[in-house]
Amino acid sequence: MRGAVLHGPRDVRFEERETPKIVKPTDAIIETWAACVCGSDLWPYRGIQPITQPTPMGHEYCGVVQEVGSAVKSVRPGQFVIGSFFASDNSCPTCRIGYQSSCQQRELVGGAQAPLLRVPLADGTLVATPDVPAGELIPSLLTLSDVMGTGWFAADAANVKPGATVAVVGDGAVGLLGVLSAKQMGAKRIIAMSRHEPRQKLAREFGATDIVTERGGDGVARIKDLTDGIGADSVLECVGTQESMSQAVNSTRPGGYMSFVGVPHGVNLKGEELFFSHIHLHGGPAPVRRYLPDLINLVLNGKINPGKVFDLRLPLNQVVEGYRAMDERRAIKSLLQTGN
Amino acid sequence: MRGAVLHGPRDVRFEERETPKIVKPTDAIIETWAACVCGSDLWPYRGIQPITQPTPMGHEYCGVVQEVGSAVKSVRPGQFVIGSFFASDNSCPTCRIGYQSSCQQRELVGGAQAPLLRVPLADGTLVATPDVPAGELIPSLLTLSDVMGTGWFAADAANVKPGATVAVVGDGAVGLLGVLSAKQMGAKRIIAMSRHEPRQKLAREFGATDIVTERGGDGVARIKDLTDGIGADSVLECVGTQESMSQAVNSTRPGGYMSFVGVPHGVNLKGEELFFSHIHLHGGPAPVRRYLPDLINLVLNGKINPGKVFDLRLPLNQVVEGYRAMDERRAIKSLLQTGN
Repeated sequence: MRGAVLHGPRDVRFEERETPKIVKPTDAIIETWAACVCGSDLWPYRGIQPITQPTPMGHEYCGVVQEVGSAVKSVRPGQFVIGSFFASDNSCPTCRIGYQSSCQQRELVGGAQAPLLRVPLADGTLVATPDVPAGELIPSLLTLSDVMGTGWFAADAANVKPGATVAVVGDGAVGLLGVLSAKQMGAKRIIAMSRHEPRQKLAREFGATDIVTERGGDGVARIKDLTDGIGADSVLECVGTQESMSQAVNSTRPGGYMSFVGVPHGVNLKGEELFFSHIHLHGGPAPVRRYLPDLINLVLNGKINPGKVFDLRLPLNQVVEGYRAMDERRAIKSLLQTGN
Repeated sequence: MRGAVLHGPRDVRFEERETPKIVKPTDAIIETWAACVCGSDLWPYRGIQPITQPTPMGHEYCGVVQEVGSAVKSVRPGQFVIGSFFASDNSCPTCRIGYQSSCQQRELVGGAQAPLLRVPLADGTLVATPDVPAGELIPSLLTLSDVMGTGWFAADAANVKPGATVAVVGDGAVGLLGVLSAKQMGAKRIIAMSRHEPRQKLAREFGATDIVTERGGDGVARIKDLTDGIGADSVLECVGTQESMSQAVNSTRPGGYMSFVGVPHGVNLKGEELFFSHIHLHGGPAPVRRYLPDLINLVLNGKINPGKVFDLRLPLNQVVEGYRAMDERRAIKSLLQTGN
């Protein structure tokens, strides 16, 4: 089997890998029907988050179950399934309150940019669709594995309510799907912060009512201008840098809600600044599993089409170009067709 | 008029000060019936938060209105009133959502450790009781001006719900009243972190079910022991140091809620740690004004007796001893009787 393996900064290779096998009785092996490159894959790709050994890449997946371990009860071979990037038992106390991505047994799913994938804790992790879906739905269903679930969590964690004014920091795929999620949740005004024309266009298509191109202090000032000097009710931080976090904190009204869903890299929050900002702060790895059943329904019923974030589609064997295009911001998000 | 003035580290003096007068038409002058020393007064008293000039001290007050400015409509001379340490107009967009301590016109009230006090924005800031209350209620009513309102906000911001497991970091007056507030809000289990016997006793009286004497990592381990390894649903951070903040973050279960209500001093929160903690975080200067009407009712109806935190009562002219006793942790909180 050939799949994507990262060897070092900007050195991702499509090469022979061991074929995944059932290791534990709770595992499943799935044929990935599509995979993709995540914004978070770019951290190790760029060398900002170093790796210690050649690392099979990819954690977003959907496809058909090929084989299950002896303890697996809720999914069976032949079913089309989607799962989260964090495997979870979906039954521990943390899962039961909806934080499956902090499951006491959680395991990162890795190596999804390949034709076959081992998914641990299959019963807790995978959600099957009623039937094998039509091909045109695959891209949207694939996004539910991470990027759409993360955008949804960003809006949920920022307490987006009907009628709210929302600002979204970050115009990557997560930020754009944060816009879509805020729209679904009934936000009245959605301000997307973006300076890239194709992304602005998609943001508007997903529901953005205003675009702010300024960043940092100027960006904050524009948000204040648009919100009677107060700031937005809900701010979604979808980047993970010091600058974007500060921009988000300062764009939130006192008593408002800010979420942060991109893994922070080198971010420090000053206690005193946070204190006087008076904001509510919530974030972390999105508990995608919590949202999967509802989001699958929204996709199958044609209510949302998050697959639009894929503006580059490549066969899996061109995965290297998929990384390059995202790294150079030529693509918002790269879809990889496995040929399964 | 004589009142408390801070001149430098541990140099607080009871000395002649200018008598407060109406400065703006929205001001009121009140005769303070009682005042007290706040934990936050100890930061400048200890020199940790430097002052640039001799500073009249005290921001917790209740008493009788002596005079009002020409624009004041809702309170009149002779009424017994309580107000927050932050004056607010109670009508700006931020006040209207209940964050009066971030009011767009807010002003710190200062110099309350004196027989007379100027309160700005009197209409928005002061709440009158139906009648002049009995003397034995004065200490409890005084606490509503800051310390009890802050303890209540700590519990509210940490989303304390009926049946919840709550941990309180800090056994100062705010922490103890956080225990009382959590109890009022229906918490089932309340773990007070304290190593001081008299404070443990008061914590139990206010509703604590468990006492943890360990701090730092050991304290976190004890909280985990008491909560099936998960952490508490709601954690109230009532200190404001790096150690206490970390202790609180790590004692909160994933998906749980942590509040912080003591002004953070030198606190830095690592973005990545906060991200993977999966907690909800909210804090800031307590919007005491939001809670005043309800808390006044609870005191007048005998439902709560927060005045128990005053374990030292002194005439105002012994204010210096009031500071010393708190600084040396001989007293939880010092009440100052003005003689009005």
